[in-house]
Amino acid sequence: MTDTTQTVSGLEALKHRRSQVWDELLSQSRFVRTIQQGEVTKALYALYLIETYHYTRHNARNQALVGVRCDDDRHYQKFCFNHAEEEVGHEQMALHDVASMGLQPGFPIPRALPATDVLIAYLYWVSYQGNPLQRLGYSFWAESCYDYIRPLLGKVQKSLGLTPAQMTFFVAHSDIDAEHSQAVDEMIAKKCKTPEDWEDVAQVMETSLRLTWKMMDEVADAYAQLVDGRSDRAAFLKAL
Amino acid sequence: MTDTTQTVSGLEALKHRRSQVWDELLSQSRFVRTIQQGEVTKALYALYLIETYHYTRHNARNQALVGVRCDDDRHYQKFCFNHAEEEVGHEQMALHDVASMGLQPGFPIPRALPATDVLIAYLYWVSYQGNPLQRLGYSFWAESCYDYIRPLLGKVQKSLGLTPAQMTFFVAHSDIDAEHSQAVDEMIAKKCKTPEDWEDVAQVMETSLRLTWKMMDEVADAYAQLVDGRSDRAAFLKAL
Amino acid sequence: MTDTTQTVSGLEALKHRRSQVWDELLSQSRFVRTIQQGEVTKALYALYLIETYHYTRHNARNQALVGVRCDDDRHYQKFCFNHAEEEVGHEQMALHDVASMGLQPGFPIPRALPATDVLIAYLYWVSYQGNPLQRLGYSFWAESCYDYIRPLLGKVQKSLGLTPAQMTFFVAHSDIDAEHSQAVDEMIAKKCKTPEDWEDVAQVMETSLRLTWKMMDEVADAYAQLVDGRSDRAAFLKAL
Amino acid sequence: MTDTTQTVSGLEALKHRRSQVWDELLSQSRFVRTIQQGEVTKALYALYLIETYHYTRHNARNQALVGVRCDDDRHYQKFCFNHAEEEVGHEQMALHDVASMGLQPGFPIPRALPATDVLIAYLYWVSYQGNPLQRLGYSFWAESCYDYIRPLLGKVQKSLGLTPAQMTFFVAHSDIDAEHSQAVDEMIAKKCKTPEDWEDVAQVMETSLRLTWKMMDEVADAYAQLVDGRSDRAAFLKAL
Repeated sequence: MTDTTQTVSGLEALKHRRSQVWDELLSQSRFVRTIQQGEVTKALYALYLIETYHYTRHNARNQALVGVRCDDDRHYQKFCFNHAEEEVGHEQMALHDVASMGLQPGFPIPRALPATDVLIAYLYWVSYQGNPLQRLGYSFWAESCYDYIRPLLGKVQKSLGLTPAQMTFFVAHSDIDAEHSQAVDEMIAKKCKTPEDWEDVAQVMETSLRLTWKMMDEVADAYAQLVDGRSDRAAFLKAL
Repeated sequence: MTDTTQTVSGLEALKHRRSQVWDELLSQSRFVRTIQQGEVTKALYALYLIETYHYTRHNARNQALVGVRCDDDRHYQKFCFNHAEEEVGHEQMALHDVASMGLQPGFPIPRALPATDVLIAYLYWVSYQGNPLQRLGYSFWAESCYDYIRPLLGKVQKSLGLTPAQMTFFVAHSDIDAEHSQAVDEMIAKKCKTPEDWEDVAQVMETSLRLTWKMMDEVADAYAQLVDGRSDRAAFLKAL
Repeated sequence: MTDTTQTVSGLEALKHRRSQVWDELLSQSRFVRTIQQGEVTKALYALYLIETYHYTRHNARNQALVGVRCDDDRHYQKFCFNHAEEEVGHEQMALHDVASMGLQPGFPIPRALPATDVLIAYLYWVSYQGNPLQRLGYSFWAESCYDYIRPLLGKVQKSLGLTPAQMTFFVAHSDIDAEHSQAVDEMIAKKCKTPEDWEDVAQVMETSLRLTWKMMDEVADAYAQLVDGRSDRAAFLKAL
Repeated sequence: MTDTTQTVSGLEALKHRRSQVWDELLSQSRFVRTIQQGEVTKALYALYLIETYHYTRHNARNQALVGVRCDDDRHYQKFCFNHAEEEVGHEQMALHDVASMGLQPGFPIPRALPATDVLIAYLYWVSYQGNPLQRLGYSFWAESCYDYIRPLLGKVQKSLGLTPAQMTFFVAHSDIDAEHSQAVDEMIAKKCKTPEDWEDVAQVMETSLRLTWKMMDEVADAYAQLVDGRSDRAAFLKAL
């Protein structure tokens, strides 16, 4: 009985910490504030989707890397490869949604912002070394993020007058991820045995969410520079 | 039309080369000859299954590595992760079959023979560098091997008086792999575009099959040393 | 002539950008301010050295990784392995300096702070993929940092009453790195051929320096939590 | 005293096993026999040097990989990076020697033979996983090979009428490697602590030497096919 209790409280503690970081993010992020104030533009949203494209491209790959490394837990290994397979190609939805706002498919994709590179670097790092369970911390918030960002997405949709067919990245993920999120919770509850396991998962959860927050705010900065004319990165988005 | 013709002839040429190497192997391998002459023993078969266990353990992992590397072909990447998932845990069937001949599960597994290490090394090498398509050359013969080894398996079964439940590794794979083999052929036909692609696949096909042959004969040598008393590696198998 | 001009201006532009980021860091970092105001304590300095230990441990390894990857530039490859060799073991000086303030060698080293993990992750990322030249951007500021931090080190030494023998990490590096810094400048000037090369080096320079800044401020936060009693991480340092 | 005795006998046993494999190789290799019988041609020697070029290109890289992996033994790590640095570019001597027999520098280099690919694959495999000490087994025979192949080199030189300036790969290595060989012996004696360490080193020593033997004989086969007109691989060498 003790073990079940510990597991339940482990998962509850993790959810609590997740909520705390989201609360900070949602109340302090400059990018979020812009959306909340109804000031989002197509160019800003496109800049965000382009960064989403950049890091999402790597998700199947770093997820599979965890499976390549773990040879003593077949159940978890299977989960990693299965999840990797499902992630393949999701970044294309982000590009589709950008194009749907008025660009030709095949538009030139600007290189990732530094904060996005850092997020990608971190996700590989936690995938190819350290506790193989720790990448679950990333999935833990990423697969359940719709609980937190749904109001923002509604705001974006309304502000920009987008149809669901123009928001495929988030609409599709919202459905897929409800199921994934359940599977991730179960995997964490099943596999985390020691306080170190729980802490490793928690730390990756918090750090990867904070790096995503940093990425969002760098998008807001890049947008400000674009509007001010201080930068010509992705200047073609001004036409949207 | 030309392209289709080339693809057909590419696949036919590959099948022809595969048959040639199998013919060499089946007529020259000392391990194969022992089986054909009805001289296989449980210890010899167990030694072979143990090496099979060793390299099979890595198949899901090196298959997934190909997917981790290829980021510009989502169709092939999905295939790699899907195939990796299906391969997880297959090595356990080899251990099960060894145990079923009269050992306790959890028996001490001797370290891999050098030839098996070399095969494993090569499969990782072709997976993490070079033409991402080339590992298909390994699948090309491995998934279709039952066409060539079925008579040998029948001979083993009869010589040792084994039930199908004691030959799960080969019985299960025989079924699974018929389907895989078709998928591998289609993938090769679809993805190989240049003469270099075909040659890369062909070379890995031939080299990995020859390394497997070498492994088989090293099993025969290890068995001879065990029987002669020159080695005490896996001496507990003498009791079978 | 044009090429020489471009190279000179490339290096000058890089130095200018480096100065700008340092200026930001030195004027805005909470950690730096604490030192400038003479409020540094042994515990705070020890916390900083411990993070320095953590990321320095990886420097030889990620430096060598660049050489493992580059097979078409023997001159640069040799530089990477040579530099890696020289970096081996430098992290021990950081531990020595911590211990010299009043701890037994072998004291328990707390795990790295999240910001340090992120810095480490990023340095591996830029080392094992992308433009092989880009890691020079990290060396570009790291090997020349004494020009910027010397006043701070003097302040630390005076505030804490340390002898040079208690500041081996910085004293030793200050000497070694003057020479390295020259070699790094020359390598950058020699190898950067395209605007993309210069931009890749510049981006890694700026991003890795900003991540180091973030690490410094997380050290300041960790110290505040230690003093406030909100955390018991590395609580043994309070005794210094 | 016991430890010293064990170390001495460990090294002696390793040397004994090395001599045994060399004896087998020197008496059974088809390639060696051709040289011993004075039947070597420039084309055959060139084919051999080309394979030497192929695997030597990777030696610095896989040597450095060992250092990247080992973070708890600074002495050995330093050795790895130092040795890697010294190995950089040695493959160029093999190309130089081929060209010196009558080709233009920059001649088209045929792809590696399968046996060479297998050797390369194995050297990476033992470098990036398993016991970090095991790659010393490769250095153990490779750095001391002149004791065994000197008569063969003399035979080649005489048969083909080559000057020392046309045999730079072997002349240069013969000098460098005498010193290296001593360092490798000392490192093995110092670092191997357990029977498993000794066995890991011994197994890599034996397996990598046997794979080199296999490579030599595949060179002899490739030469026979070239002469017979069964293959046009590297046909330009016939003109030598």
